[in-house]
Amino acid sequence: MNEARSMVKNFSSSTLRVVLVAPRNPLNIGAAARAMSNFGYSQLRVVNPYEVAFREARSAVGAASLLASAQEFTNVSDAVRDCRLVVGTTSVGHRELQHPLRRLEYGARLIRKAAGPVALLFGSEKFGLSNDDMSHCHWLIRISTADIHRSMNLGQAVAVCLYELARDSRAAAVRPGTLKPAAAADTEQITTMLIEALAQSGYINPLTAASTETKVRRLVRRLNITGRDAPVLLGMLRQILWKTSG
Amino acid sequence: MNEARSMVKNFSSSTLRVVLVAPRNPLNIGAAARAMSNFGYSQLRVVNPYEVAFREARSAVGAASLLASAQEFTNVSDAVRDCRLVVGTTSVGHRELQHPLRRLEYGARLIRKAAGPVALLFGSEKFGLSNDDMSHCHWLIRISTADIHRSMNLGQAVAVCLYELARDSRAAAVRPGTLKPAAAADTEQITTMLIEALAQSGYINPLTAASTETKVRRLVRRLNITGRDAPVLLGMLRQILWKTSG
Repeated sequence: MNEARSMVKNFSSSTLRVVLVAPRNPLNIGAAARAMSNFGYSQLRVVNPYEVAFREARSAVGAASLLASAQEFTNVSDAVRDCRLVVGTTSVGHRELQHPLRRLEYGARLIRKAAGPVALLFGSEKFGLSNDDMSHCHWLIRISTADIHRSMNLGQAVAVCLYELARDSRAAAVRPGTLKPAAAADTEQITTMLIEALAQSGYINPLTAASTETKVRRLVRRLNITGRDAPVLLGMLRQILWKTSG
Repeated sequence: MNEARSMVKNFSSSTLRVVLVAPRNPLNIGAAARAMSNFGYSQLRVVNPYEVAFREARSAVGAASLLASAQEFTNVSDAVRDCRLVVGTTSVGHRELQHPLRRLEYGARLIRKAAGPVALLFGSEKFGLSNDDMSHCHWLIRISTADIHRSMNLGQAVAVCLYELARDSRAAAVRPGTLKPAAAADTEQITTMLIEALAQSGYINPLTAASTETKVRRLVRRLNITGRDAPVLLGMLRQILWKTSG
């Protein structure tokens, strides 16, 4: 089962082209490629990379095969030529934007609904996308960050955007299967043995025994003992009882 | 307005402690600190870091002040002592897990609801959290990734987890304000002038003029012209008309 694929219902991962414009740092190019691989995307395009960085990133140990097949372009226009939707990313710094700006949560929804190849553009580490780069975009997205420190690391920004695209909102509502709780019989046996051990060790005052036992019973239920832990706890209590009754 | 804070409704950012266990790479420690700063979290704790790496990360140019105030511990137990909820992260590799495992989307919801300090643990780049580290955790979260490449870069994993914690699900549903659409009068003036230019240039066949005009009118509406672009387009058309009528 390819989970990344199953997460992304109406949006084939082959629809997305991640486009790095003028990246300078080989570690960031590699990090972008790694995040793509983590979230099941494969089409990386690079526009005017700093050549040394691109060579280094490609030759790095463990470089994903998608780096080897990354396409290189000399301008944004060529890099997005086959796309039906072109979306830029920005940290919204000092510049006044001429584009509709959407939060990632909403922008990712629109991207998933797109009816054709989508290009997602990331600017250089230092300057982001230029106004000229942005003029190729239909709209922009931003990752909502603290005002005081808006600018994200390139590799991390790519990871967050691809995570949001692959995110399954239903997974937030539905509780996935956890460990099976213990059967009531086991929980009750643990309770009984604990009460016995407490009685033998003098913890329980005979005058208030009934009320204490009820409290212990409720406490044991609050522990949410799992089916796997029940026999272990029973073994421990058996050993303690052997000692306290001795 | 501090947006990162406004995003996180019931969960104060001071509630979270990000705990890096045995990190080896100064770049990753720095990247984790940067992501924390991006999403408005400040309490970084480091357990048994590779000392050289921790020193390097602290002394890096532009290191966030939160790195300077990061606390160092020799074991996980001390690092999470004041926390009411301890959550580990895992890529679920080869090991069999002894803990309830939740997807980030759901785990983040539980963390936001926690009634006290929460520790979020990240293991070393190479090995992740050990079984001993995990035994301090109430449960684990995983970022849903492609089966073929599960293991994420440490700095990117921290960024994605903090993004999900700060994420505003309502932002996915509500369309934020975009550029104001043009007034109908302007749109109609653009239509009229375009039709005139088309007529003058011989594009419109007089026999089918009425139907063509209707098609042009619909096409212009589909362009979703903004209030800002309307005068620019009118200026262009005026110029073209001046030429075609000449």
